Amino acid sequence: MPAPGPGFSLTLSVRDQESMDPLARIVPALSLHGGRLAAALPLPDGSLAITVYCRDLPHQQEILTSLRGIPGLTSTGLQDDVFALHRGGKLQMSSTSPLKSAADLARQYTPGVARICRSIAKVPDRARILTQRRNLVAVVSDGSAILGLGNLGPAAALPVMEGKAILFKEFGGVDAFPIVLASQDMEEIVATVTQIAPSFAGINLEDISAPRCFAIEDRLKNTLDIPVFHDDQHGTAIVVLAAIQNACRVTGKDFSRLRVVVLGVGAAGTACIRLLTKAGVGEIIGVNRGGSIFSGKPGLSESNLELAKITNPRRVEGGVVEALAGADVFLGLSGPNLLPLAGVKAMAPDPIVLAMSNPDPEIDPEVVRPWVAVLATGRSDYPNQVNNVLAFPGLFRGALDAGATQITGGMCLAASAAIASLAERDGVNRENIIPNPLDRRVAPAVAEAVAEAARQDGVARDFPPVPGIDELSDC
Amino acid sequence: MPAPGPGFSLTLSVRDQESMDPLARIVPALSLHGGRLAAALPLPDGSLAITVYCRDLPHQQEILTSLRGIPGLTSTGLQDDVFALHRGGKLQMSSTSPLKSAADLARQYTPGVARICRSIAKVPDRARILTQRRNLVAVVSDGSAILGLGNLGPAAALPVMEGKAILFKEFGGVDAFPIVLASQDMEEIVATVTQIAPSFAGINLEDISAPRCFAIEDRLKNTLDIPVFHDDQHGTAIVVLAAIQNACRVTGKDFSRLRVVVLGVGAAGTACIRLLTKAGVGEIIGVNRGGSIFSGKPGLSESNLELAKITNPRRVEGGVVEALAGADVFLGLSGPNLLPLAGVKAMAPDPIVLAMSNPDPEIDPEVVRPWVAVLATGRSDYPNQVNNVLAFPGLFRGALDAGATQITGGMCLAASAAIASLAERDGVNRENIIPNPLDRRVAPAVAEAVAEAARQDGVARDFPPVPGIDELSDC
Repeated sequence: MPAPGPGFSLTLSVRDQESMDPLARIVPALSLHGGRLAAALPLPDGSLAITVYCRDLPHQQEILTSLRGIPGLTSTGLQDDVFALHRGGKLQMSSTSPLKSAADLARQYTPGVARICRSIAKVPDRARILTQRRNLVAVVSDGSAILGLGNLGPAAALPVMEGKAILFKEFGGVDAFPIVLASQDMEEIVATVTQIAPSFAGINLEDISAPRCFAIEDRLKNTLDIPVFHDDQHGTAIVVLAAIQNACRVTGKDFSRLRVVVLGVGAAGTACIRLLTKAGVGEIIGVNRGGSIFSGKPGLSESNLELAKITNPRRVEGGVVEALAGADVFLGLSGPNLLPLAGVKAMAPDPIVLAMSNPDPEIDPEVVRPWVAVLATGRSDYPNQVNNVLAFPGLFRGALDAGATQITGGMCLAASAAIASLAERDGVNRENIIPNPLDRRVAPAVAEAVAEAARQDGVARDFPPVPGIDELSDC
Repeated sequence: MPAPGPGFSLTLSVRDQESMDPLARIVPALSLHGGRLAAALPLPDGSLAITVYCRDLPHQQEILTSLRGIPGLTSTGLQDDVFALHRGGKLQMSSTSPLKSAADLARQYTPGVARICRSIAKVPDRARILTQRRNLVAVVSDGSAILGLGNLGPAAALPVMEGKAILFKEFGGVDAFPIVLASQDMEEIVATVTQIAPSFAGINLEDISAPRCFAIEDRLKNTLDIPVFHDDQHGTAIVVLAAIQNACRVTGKDFSRLRVVVLGVGAAGTACIRLLTKAGVGEIIGVNRGGSIFSGKPGLSESNLELAKITNPRRVEGGVVEALAGADVFLGLSGPNLLPLAGVKAMAPDPIVLAMSNPDPEIDPEVVRPWVAVLATGRSDYPNQVNNVLAFPGLFRGALDAGATQITGGMCLAASAAIASLAERDGVNRENIIPNPLDRRVAPAVAEAVAEAARQDGVARDFPPVPGIDELSDC
């Protein structure tokens, strides 16, 4: 049962006709029904605005009924805070300098802007410094794999893309703009992103389902000269790698001899397997609905065929429990309750469990906690929250600052190492293998490491100089 | 010769080793060379920051040389203000509410956002109120006809699109986002805009050359359920119509008997002819490089063939001078200095001249002014500046507020009438036939008229209600 939280939050104004101390009657009623009073503020009109955290929709109704049952208490202005927040959207455009006078207009628009156009026409690379492209990433989705909700289409994807754009700006200082697409056809997606690419300095693909996401990313990477990054794949892999490396530090395990079982080999699972392999992990067994993947297994998909070449060298057959025999790490990127406790019990001593299915992990954290050395989930109400926001804002910040033409494996490893070392500096322990998602130190540290890796990998580009006055006649 | 202005503006810090009063030496030097001191500010370090308006690039150099020639005057920190303003671009993304706490994160992103996604998946129309789509217009260009500069491509188009987006926000409160396209192929443009349309509530096509712009707009209008509007065509036509109607009021001419000659029948000229016709103007003759257009003329393009059906009923042949014999209005949407004074002299009494080529009109304003009753240009340094900013921010504001599925001819006429009547209320005269482009009253007046016209034309849509708490279990 989820804890009451801000995701299901109600705000309403109450007036108490029977008591001068309405909270003395409200708080016990809420406690009785498991609601949480998050805020209370007296309003000028004499009423009291209260915000109540609930667990889910039925619980919201239960709480409301309980409040309405308090004699003499009347309520008005009831709102669901999440819906209220989303009204009108979460993003807006604004100008970087004021437009109030005719002089402002002449500089920002005609006739002044014509000089900038001509200057860029002469040296197109100048668009990288003289336009918003300098700092702009498209967050592109076809709505085919939204969060854990599935294929809800483009309109329903927009609120997630807006949220992502907010995180880009808040943590990385990156301007990000949501683009949701009418089609889920691979060719049309590639063509569309190629067409709009001149507007952006980077492309963050988001919530596009496997296996299309692999080919879409590969093709765009090959044709565009700006970073293309599917966050569900590589963002997850970066943070997972950091978490596993610090879990090794906590448990004294040797990363290069680590045996890892990955349950769920879709977009995220595949990318995790590839990045862990690149980082030199010991051995990985990938498991999906059809059981463990091994080379020579009949009926493997194209992407699983590739994975079979770099995983499961002992050709272990069977399901997740069989695969976990003697394993050090369980990495779940699948669905709720797919990991039986028997599997955990079959692991090597000091097991490390990353159960990333969200909001319901592969195994109930309360059940598994006594049996593991380290537990990480995707949830904010447990320690060790594996959250992509630790990676993507700093990663793109670094890539943009370096003028990177692409995001290399080396840049992903550098991002992961930066995240891990920040937690290490604070002192890693079983409840602190990765930084808190709201830790403001993360993105700048990641950005610096990523920009340096871009230079080392030869994908960094200098920015063209802004022409000086004495050169302007040539622009 | 253009006047010195903020489009060519220099800022530098000066120090005077020989005098306590540097401006006493600077101002005469500037006056001698025709520069204009626009600002002077003492800096804490004892130097003086000065901003100087120049006429053009060679003039900037001349002014600099003259300042550098003042004995004992040293200068540092020289910048071209237009380039300095454009550094890093003119637009940025920002969030509509703060993201500082875990509770903010839970509401704006997971887990709260999943509720909004599900709610929209159930009723896709809710994306119109629960996402930034509510207020968002794409400013789309292929860079094929940038300002008067020609085909400079997408990178060089970006600064104009950013400027346009700023005007949308500043005057109409509309969030607008620049999309420049890699291709100038009609099919690819139509396909791309169709693909990204779910992200927006409107499409403003911009600086796309004729004749492709006609088909692109028509096809997108037919397939999309949001307004599609090519501003170079219809924005211009709306403001021109307002100007001509008020010029009739000033001169006492009867609009329904007006004889108009349009020089330049590209995107803007064609749209002006159509809107003037729809508004009931007397007679129009279109003239292009090949002379006047009339039905039966050999070699007419497809779009000119259509124009021939609604123009030049007397089948006047020849060039612009021949067409102007007895005409009331000259409307130039062509290029610099294409209107001979002889043409103006051939017009009916009290001629009305709109010479829109920018920055250099079809005839020198100083030359033509004594010969006309009303003169309008695209320039800010003369009265009666015909500027699209009078139309598009309010037009889209009204369309968005009405939830319009398209922009109809009726909405364009309503926008034009609102612009004209605002000038009329202030008292029209030969130097005031349209409001100033910076007049803040215009966009709200246009928006109100346009929204009403959308309702009358049956293209308005109600917004779906935000689900109330008691309905949430159904969302």
